[in-house]
Order: sequence, then C-alpha cells, then structure tokens
Amino acid sequence: MILENITDPNQIKSLTSSELKILAKEVRNRIVEVVSKTGGHLAPSLGTVDLTIALLYLFDPLVDKIVWDVGHQTYGWKILTGRNAQFDSLRQYKGLCGFTNRDESPYDAFTTGHSSTSISAALGIACGRDLNNEKGHCIAVIGDGALTGGISFEALNHGGHLQKDKFIVILNDNEMSISKNVGGLQKYMTRMLASKSYNVLKKQIWDLSLTLPSNIRRSFIYGAQKLEESMMNILVPNIIFEDLGYKYVGPIDGHDIDQLLRIIKRVKNYMVGPVLIHIVTQKGKGYAPAEKDAALFHGTGPFELKTGKQLSSGKQSWSDFMGSTLVNLAKKNPKIVAITAAMIAGTGLTKFEETFPDRFFDVGIAEQHSVTLAAGMATKGIKPFVAIYSTFMQRALDQVIHDVALPKLPVVFCIDRAGIVGEDGATHQGAFDLSFLNFIPNLIILTPSTAEELSAMLSWAADYQEGPVAIRYPRGAAIHSLEHQEPVQFDPFSVKIHSHEGKIALVACGDAIFIAEEVHKLLEKNNIQSKLVQLLSVKPLNEKALSDLASTCNYIFTFESNAVIGGMGARITQLLSTYPVKVINFGYPDSFIPHGKISELLDEIGFTPAKLYNKISQILNE
Amino acid sequence: MILENITDPNQIKSLTSSELKILAKEVRNRIVEVVSKTGGHLAPSLGTVDLTIALLYLFDPLVDKIVWDVGHQTYGWKILTGRNAQFDSLRQYKGLCGFTNRDESPYDAFTTGHSSTSISAALGIACGRDLNNEKGHCIAVIGDGALTGGISFEALNHGGHLQKDKFIVILNDNEMSISKNVGGLQKYMTRMLASKSYNVLKKQIWDLSLTLPSNIRRSFIYGAQKLEESMMNILVPNIIFEDLGYKYVGPIDGHDIDQLLRIIKRVKNYMVGPVLIHIVTQKGKGYAPAEKDAALFHGTGPFELKTGKQLSSGKQSWSDFMGSTLVNLAKKNPKIVAITAAMIAGTGLTKFEETFPDRFFDVGIAEQHSVTLAAGMATKGIKPFVAIYSTFMQRALDQVIHDVALPKLPVVFCIDRAGIVGEDGATHQGAFDLSFLNFIPNLIILTPSTAEELSAMLSWAADYQEGPVAIRYPRGAAIHSLEHQEPVQFDPFSVKIHSHEGKIALVACGDAIFIAEEVHKLLEKNNIQSKLVQLLSVKPLNEKALSDLASTCNYIFTFESNAVIGGMGARITQLLSTYPVKVINFGYPDSFIPHGKISELLDEIGFTPAKLYNKISQILNE
Repeated sequence: MILENITDPNQIKSLTSSELKILAKEVRNRIVEVVSKTGGHLAPSLGTVDLTIALLYLFDPLVDKIVWDVGHQTYGWKILTGRNAQFDSLRQYKGLCGFTNRDESPYDAFTTGHSSTSISAALGIACGRDLNNEKGHCIAVIGDGALTGGISFEALNHGGHLQKDKFIVILNDNEMSISKNVGGLQKYMTRMLASKSYNVLKKQIWDLSLTLPSNIRRSFIYGAQKLEESMMNILVPNIIFEDLGYKYVGPIDGHDIDQLLRIIKRVKNYMVGPVLIHIVTQKGKGYAPAEKDAALFHGTGPFELKTGKQLSSGKQSWSDFMGSTLVNLAKKNPKIVAITAAMIAGTGLTKFEETFPDRFFDVGIAEQHSVTLAAGMATKGIKPFVAIYSTFMQRALDQVIHDVALPKLPVVFCIDRAGIVGEDGATHQGAFDLSFLNFIPNLIILTPSTAEELSAMLSWAADYQEGPVAIRYPRGAAIHSLEHQEPVQFDPFSVKIHSHEGKIALVACGDAIFIAEEVHKLLEKNNIQSKLVQLLSVKPLNEKALSDLASTCNYIFTFESNAVIGGMGARITQLLSTYPVKVINFGYPDSFIPHGKISELLDEIGFTPAKLYNKISQILNE
Repeated sequence: MILENITDPNQIKSLTSSELKILAKEVRNRIVEVVSKTGGHLAPSLGTVDLTIALLYLFDPLVDKIVWDVGHQTYGWKILTGRNAQFDSLRQYKGLCGFTNRDESPYDAFTTGHSSTSISAALGIACGRDLNNEKGHCIAVIGDGALTGGISFEALNHGGHLQKDKFIVILNDNEMSISKNVGGLQKYMTRMLASKSYNVLKKQIWDLSLTLPSNIRRSFIYGAQKLEESMMNILVPNIIFEDLGYKYVGPIDGHDIDQLLRIIKRVKNYMVGPVLIHIVTQKGKGYAPAEKDAALFHGTGPFELKTGKQLSSGKQSWSDFMGSTLVNLAKKNPKIVAITAAMIAGTGLTKFEETFPDRFFDVGIAEQHSVTLAAGMATKGIKPFVAIYSTFMQRALDQVIHDVALPKLPVVFCIDRAGIVGEDGATHQGAFDLSFLNFIPNLIILTPSTAEELSAMLSWAADYQEGPVAIRYPRGAAIHSLEHQEPVQFDPFSVKIHSHEGKIALVACGDAIFIAEEVHKLLEKNNIQSKLVQLLSVKPLNEKALSDLASTCNYIFTFESNAVIGGMGARITQLLSTYPVKVINFGYPDSFIPHGKISELLDEIGFTPAKLYNKISQILNE
C-alpha cells in the first residue's frame, strides 16, 4: 500500500511513474469503498484522481492555489491532502464536507459547492498574488458542464483581458455535466476533439522541444507557439478559447498520468499568459458500474460495493411526484412546457422529457437563462414550469424579479429541495428561498405539505394566468395525505385549521406542519390546548384568518423550514404587529447550517418538536 | 417632415431610400431635443436609429418580435411605433418609460431595463412561436457590452444548441458598454473588424448572388455559405459565434441604411438556423457633443441643446464621495482594491482608477464575476471594495451568499443607488437590497445618512477582517452632516438618539432618518413628543437599544428606503414581538414603483412626512 504511507502531499513528488499509477488505483478503491457506505459524488471524484495526483506531483498546494469547481470531484484530493484518516466521515455530521472548504483544510483554496465559480475565484487569487508580489500558480479545474454557467464566461472573458501569467484553467471535459451536456459549446468541443491532424502536429513540436538543451528550449517554445497559432486556424476548427485570449493546450487524455505530467509541466515551466488545458476524462473511471451509468453515480446514495446496486428506499420522491403530476397536466394542456438547468433526474423531469421531448428544455447549468427563457415563452402564451433547487434559485433572483414578476408573466417555479437537504451541507441547504422570494411583488408563493397538496397547487398554477407562482417543497420521499387520495381543489388563499381549541396558535407552512403537529400533541399531553393552522399560501397570506387568530389568541407560534429572517413568520409578525397577540417565529437560525443527516441538523438548530415544545413552555411560563 | 406623418410603423415600408435617411435625421433631432430637457440614455438611442428604421422596414413588429437588450437604445423605436406624440413625456411621471415595456406598447416584445436578457428572451419567444406553430422572426439586438453578461453567454450557448430558424441575434458593436468595454471577447472582435480580406471576399459572393434569378439564388447562397465556412478559417481570426453554432454575418456599417436593408433582408429571406449579424455603430451618432463624449452622454441629465453643456447641479454625488473617500483609504492601506461592473463613473471610481490603475478592476457587465473575483482576492489578504448599484446586486445574490458570506471573506460591498432612483423607474429602483441581504448570515449591513457617516463606515470596513460588510447609500447629491465636519469614529452597533422624549419612537436607517425627522417635527407641532432614533447598522441590530425603546414606548414606527417586506422594520418587529409595544413599519409597498421624480414617487407611495404623519395620527387616535 502506497496510500497508507502518504501523510503529506509532498511525498507524492518522490514516487515513480508506476507508483503513481498504483496510488491512483488505491485512491479510487478508497473512494468507492467509503462512498458505497456514505453516498456522495462518486463518478466526478473517480474521474479526477489522475489529474489530482498529477497536480500534487507538479505543484505545491500550499503555495500554488488550485480551485476545484463545484468541489464534488475532490474526494481524491481530500484523501491525498492529509484527510485520508477522516475520509470515512465524508458528508457525515461533524465529518468531512462533500466539497472543498477553507475551514476544513489549508489545502482547499476556496469554499465551493455551487457550480461555475472556479475561474472567477482563481483569477481573484491570481490578482491577489500579484498585488502581494507572491509566487505560485493559480489553477481553476472546471468541468465542461460548469463551463456553461454564465459566471464562468464572465470570468473567462475577464481573464483573457487581464493576461495574467501563471493563471491556468484546466477544462475537465467528460462530455456531461450531471445529466448529459447541452449547448453549442459542447458540440464545438466535440468537433475539436476529432481534429487529430492538429494534435499530432502539436505533439511533434512539443516532443522536438524536449531534445533541445534547456537554455534555448524556452525561446524555441516561444517561437513554436507563434507557429502553432498560425497553423491552428488552418488545421482545426476554431479554438474558442484562443479567441478569448488563452493559449490552448489539448485535448489530452486525463487518465494518462505520464502525459498529464509531461504536458502540465511544460505549461507550468514555459508558457506565459493565461493557458487553458483541455483534458478528457471519464466520469466514474475505474469502477465499472459508475463507468456504465455515470449519471446514476453522479450523486449516489449508499450502494452495494460489488454490484453497484443502489440501496435506496424505493419511495417516490417529491421531485418524481412533481414530474409525474406535470406529465399528467401537460397531457391535458398543450401549452405546458418544462425547463430545467442540468437537473433532469434531480428535479424529476425524466419522464416529462421522454413523454414530451419537444416541450422539454434542459438549458445546461444556466439558471439565469432558464428563467428569462421561460419569461420569453410566457409572452407567447406558453405555460413554463421551471424546476430548480432552492439553493440554485439564488442564481436567478434578478431574473425572477426583473424578467418575470415585474411584467407579471405566468411562469411557475417548482422550487425543489426547499429546507435542509442534509449531507450536501451549507452550500446546498434550501434555507433562504422564502426570504428572497417573499418581497417580490406580484409573486404567489405556495407551500405544500403533502403530495396531494402539491398536485392541487401544480394544477391550480397551470391555469393561473395573472402572474408568476412559486411552489416550494422539500427533498426526500413525498409524504402522502391520509385525508385526500385524489387531487383536491385548491384555493391558494385557504388555510387548513387542524385544531380549533385554545388561546395559543401554532401556524405552519409546508413540511413544518408536521413539526407543529408534534408540538401540538406535546402541548396537549401537558394539558395545553392549541390551535393548529396550516397556511397553503405564504404569499399572499390569508389576512382574515390570521387576524382572527390574533383576536382570539395570546400567542401565535410560527413554524417554517426556512430562515427566520425574512420568512413567513416575519411577514405574519409584521402583519399582526398592532394586535395584542405575541407572535414568535421558529425556523432556521441566522447562520449557515452544516452537513449531516437532516435529523441531526434539525436537532443542532433546535428545530425539533421536543426542543420547540420546551421553548414554548418556557415562554408560556414567563 | 416625414416623421410627423408616421402614425403606424408600417408606413415606413413605403418610403424610398432617401426618405429613410431623412427620417433617420428627423428621429435623431427629435431624440436630442427631448432628451436635452428630460435627460436620458441619449448616446445609445442615437446609435441605433438607422438599425431601428431598417428593422421596421423589413419586419412586421407585431408579428416578428424584436427584443432590444436593456431597452435604453429604443427612443427611436418608441418614436416610430406610435409614441411620437407622447415622447416629450419620456421618463416623466405617468409618461413614457425609459426602456421597453410590454405594458406601454404592443410593439415592445419584452420588458427590459437590466442588461443581457435579450438573447434568452428572444430565444424563449422563438420557442413559444414554434410550439404555437406561429410565424415570424425573433430578433435580439444586443450591445457588445451587454454580451459580456453571463446570461448572454448561457443563452447564446443554448441557442446554438437549439438551432432554431428565424432566430437572429444582432450584435450592436460600439466598442463600449457604458464605460469602455472589457474582456478577451472585445479584443477578439476588434481583431475581427480588422480582417478586411475576408469581408471583401464575402461581399463579392453576396453581390454575385444578387445577379442570379431568384429561383436558383437560394441554393447558390446555401453553397456559398458552405464555401464561406471553409474559407473563414483561413482568412479571418476565428469566429467565436460560428463555434457556438451561429451563422455569422458581418461586420457591417450600422449607419448605412441601404447596406443594413440589403444584408438583413438576405438573412431574413434565405438563411436557416440561428444567425448572428454583427453591425458596427457609433454611440451618440448624429449629435456632435455625444459623438465626442459618448460616456458622458450615455445616461445624461438635461443639457443645453446647442453646446451639449450639462445642466447638472454640480453637487458632489454619494458615488463621487464614496470614490474619493476610498482613494484616501487606499493611500493608507495598500491592500485596498476597487472593483466595478462596467460602472466606473456611475459608482464614482474614475479617480480611483486614475490613482491606482493596478488596484482597480472593471470586469465589464458581470456582477456575478465581480463578487467571486473579490472573494478570491480576499483569500489572499486583499481588501476588495465592490461598488454595484442596488438593483444590479440582485444579479449576484448567490455569489454574495455562497462565495463571500459562507466563508466569511472580508469583502466590502458599496451598494449605490439604494432606494428609489427616480426616472429610470421600476427596473432600476433600489427597493429590495435590505430584503435580500438581511437574511444572509455573517453579513454586516450599514446604512449611512450623511457623507460623514459613509466615510466613517468605509474606514471601519477597511479594517474589519471577520467577514463581509455591505454599505448602502442613495442616488443623488451627498448630504453633509452639520455636526461632523471631520470623519468620525464609528461603532457599527451604535445608534444615534436625536430625541429622547415621548412614549412613541421613530426609528430610521439611512436617508429615511430625514423623513423621520420631519415626521418628528410635525408630531411636535401637534404636541406629540417622540423619540427619534437612527440605526447606523441594520445588521446586526442594536438589540439593547431597541429593547430599551420597547420597554419605554407604546409605539415604535420604523422608516426605511426599502420594501417593507423583509427589511429593517420587519426584523425589528420580529425581535420585539414579545414586548407589549406595537411596531409599525413604513417603507416601500409590495408593488413595483414606476418612474418619475423621486418626490413624485414618494408621494405616490405615501412615503412623505405629511402622509406618514397622517397615518401615525390615525393609528394613535384609534
């Protein structure tokens, strides 16, 4: 075992070529073994093991700064930068984070989780390095999927302008983001890969340079680059990255460690100005089930090590329920289309795509565009349903406000994974959507607690033509109503009063009603009667129902799976501020919520029935 | 006069070539004359008059959908699509909007104001058209500056993938956005413009096609396109747009109406798949002062028609004060850098750029990148000040949360034009920043009311290393404190108690303190004592001071230049909800605020001292 002796990444520099390859194998085995138990981003991390080893061999990761885009491909990086011993705790409460994180390790140059930030961050680090007159390379490693995110292009464009030395973008091209990849850029890159003649010629020039004595090698390479530029226009389809101001190197095999070392070393030692190195890797590399179905193993739950068989609950998720309901609505209404930003399976739209390929739009990792595209469609009488995770909706706030809500376009936002999502942690918790949507004029916000309510809301929203509607629902298995087996009629202003008695009221929206319900029972056990009220609509609020509560109660306690600041409760408190009733809001705290099981996190933040009951008792006793 | 007879844009189709040119002149004169009185986006609108006429000549603007990016270049469009008679009301209260607006005219295909949305919108409209089996072209007209915004690239990439017919992107290249343009893409386009040989050849092929009978012209053009593609790689620097899947046509002179008609007609009639037409225009074209200084006349106040002399107040703006203060701080602290997204003069950073060119970064229209770039810099101990208008911060919410606040990086956000901005209207009001920043953990939010407070806050923020700070200040002339002539020491938790007496309290932040002060005086006149309290920090709130108020008052009225939902007042109400005090929040309503003078808009929404006094009296009398 080579891996078990590596406690410092610099030890990698002294390994032989064949030892590096053995190390790669050992790292992959370690990743597969742990992720089979913890779940996680298996396929991306298997794809980058060889690149990780090459970078650690060539660079000093405390001086050179390597920014891994998204950070979900860094399990090998974590294992090799001093975190092998803790690697079993991956994505577990108090354990290693599933992404890179500056608080976790000095080797993690940037805190990541969302896609497409690496070029901006690495460019910023390069600017800082130069302002400080420091040494070192700044490297962004970005997938071809993440490259479609607008901020990547903004950064690429600015980087081409700044022309910084020792600034390298490594394009990790696996021809898919999470689902298959999208866009003109992708087609272009495929064409480029096919252009053998250019690459053969290029390799010959590089190889020739190696035969030269080192004192003249540098000027030869400079001349060769000039020559190359001229030839490139003739021999290859256009190199988009060169247009933007980058030297382009590649495409090269991202699993051939020797080739990676040879080429990246040359770039490191001889090239000036920004360089884009294009490597080609296979997602899931080295684990047969993941090689076969990289989409399934992109982000996986626990699975059987030997076969790759998923050990999932088999329960229908909220996402899948949303997707199948939307298919049914779309059968009746030909104006309905579905839009996703690279999350076809994640948002439950696989069946929609199969059923209505012409009415399905996967725009790639491009949340901003997905929303404004929907706005454009809506001006033509189309009814777009845009399905995006709560945390990624943060990317499209301006588009929701400016392109959809202001002109009152009837776009429906299906906000998936609202509330705490668990193991993906702080970067992915859906903690803020009620807060960043609540203040948007003309927007209706609905919060189902059961699949049947979601179904009714989707159906209502499909017919609503006056403006946009956002429907938020949690991650995980859909909860089915005991009272309604059939889709119900839905009035967005309605409230469900589950219990009428008492001088205190528990008011909840979405899945927080189940916590409120438990609190209600605990109160009852202790002989305290409480009204239990569920709001289906967070915006508009049913002011009549709330003022009735305010007139008949001493206390209203609100419950929501969202930050307390700016959420449903805040708005209720504001509305009822002239009533003598005291309104107290429960939800998420004013801090980022880390990773772990949802139950562990809810316990940490005190958002459990028992802890909330204790708080309420205390308040009532004051 | 041709213009005065045009009441329907279709009349343009019957004009002769020389009449079109006269019309262009008349439209320009009309624009200059009105804008000299109203102020507005003069230079952009002068640059597109010829293109506007060409498009109206060739297309039916009720069937074909033309989406003008940003919409500030559409004064000619408004004049020629039935709004000439109202054009004097441009940007005035109840008058014509300064941008395109679907509520204003059926000729405005999309509501705009923010940059870079046009390709997404036009693509969405094209999708809707095809789903509906309708006819017509979908056209996005986008400036080279707006093209650097990430959503443009997301849309361009998706458009290349979809390969829709009758989908045209017109790149209006004037080699500047608002300030001069930035980026690798710009350098590339300049290189492309220089490539004469290709364009000469291309013109010859096109001209040849005109000599052919129409029945074989189409197939000839198809063959010529193929030929052209092969030649292009040899004769021109790479055509980035072709790489992305667009047929590229251009560059062509955007002020030569005959050439525009000839070429766009060919594109319209013969070309399949998405096409990018690259036209070159001059900002300010036809009005000498604007031709000479297009940046000054990009968005101008009223000016003297004959000379172009600005009729400005000459008072120092908040922006300029921020900029000059930052220069002074940067002289003392070499770690300070300034970042702007294409708003050098707008955010007051002209002097900073001159003084510290190496520590100044204009990233182009790329708010997302500007924030994550700053985050990268901050990891290297640099102290970035990112100056962005409130309304454009909406574009970078995810980056503020995910790349800055989560890793607690000490980036300072200078949020300019917070609150109502006036004539730019609904798309540009800084109405929401407190609401979309308030819930972000680790973020400090400061709200100066005077230049001296801003100065103290900038100075404090420059030294603060624990996390990010946002400082929001309004548009317009900086207000100077009477009490402090010198920069003051600043404690971010401090409150200023301007008046201690009474059982009601008026609590305000930022410039809303001046409204609260007037209300205080009106109350006093009517023998009602009120405490007058100013919060310098909206986050964190000074809970001690607030609970003291809550314990001693029956009513607290809060005042802020922000939406009431999710703002400072909402948070105060939440914090004090268990106190017997009644907290009532004043601020902006839950609706988009239109354009007009700030005073007119404040009156419309009831946010004036007199109207607020009336509301308070009414509440106190209940």
